[in-house]
Amino acid sequence: MAQYVGFFAAILGTVCWLPQAWKAWASRDTAGLSLPANLMFLATVSLWFIYGLMIGDWPIILANFCAIMIVTSIVAAKLKFG
Amino acid sequence: MAQYVGFFAAILGTVCWLPQAWKAWASRDTAGLSLPANLMFLATVSLWFIYGLMIGDWPIILANFCAIMIVTSIVAAKLKFG
Repeated sequence: MAQYVGFFAAILGTVCWLPQAWKAWASRDTAGLSLPANLMFLATVSLWFIYGLMIGDWPIILANFCAIMIVTSIVAAKLKFG
Repeated sequence: MAQYVGFFAAILGTVCWLPQAWKAWASRDTAGLSLPANLMFLATVSLWFIYGLMIGDWPIILANFCAIMIVTSIVAAKLKFG
């Protein structure tokens, strides 16, 4: 049972930033987004990705690879639109 | 070594949203924040909190309890300021 909760949390934690990335690029309104917060979150998912590589855990590697792509696009929107 | 990377990722993943919460309440500009993204992220950290309780892992419980507090304050700012 705990495994299913963890599995669902991992999936949700990966896809949950898609609406934010979409909104940032569609609205071009990124004034309310915190650049330090998003840069630190990018560092966080990058560290989880490295952790996954170190322990050879494919679910962690894949989930955080996707997260890196999504969060990078949010940071890029913030840098572009200010 | 992998443990240290995971430990640092867990700490960073918890504190990284503090600047976003601060910015949301200080600027009252939350137009660029995605409510669905932040609600899904709140669900994510709540699920990790429940997962921590289920497996009795205190670092997971504590980290996600802090995350629930911070993300709730971001969602509250979004609901208040629109």
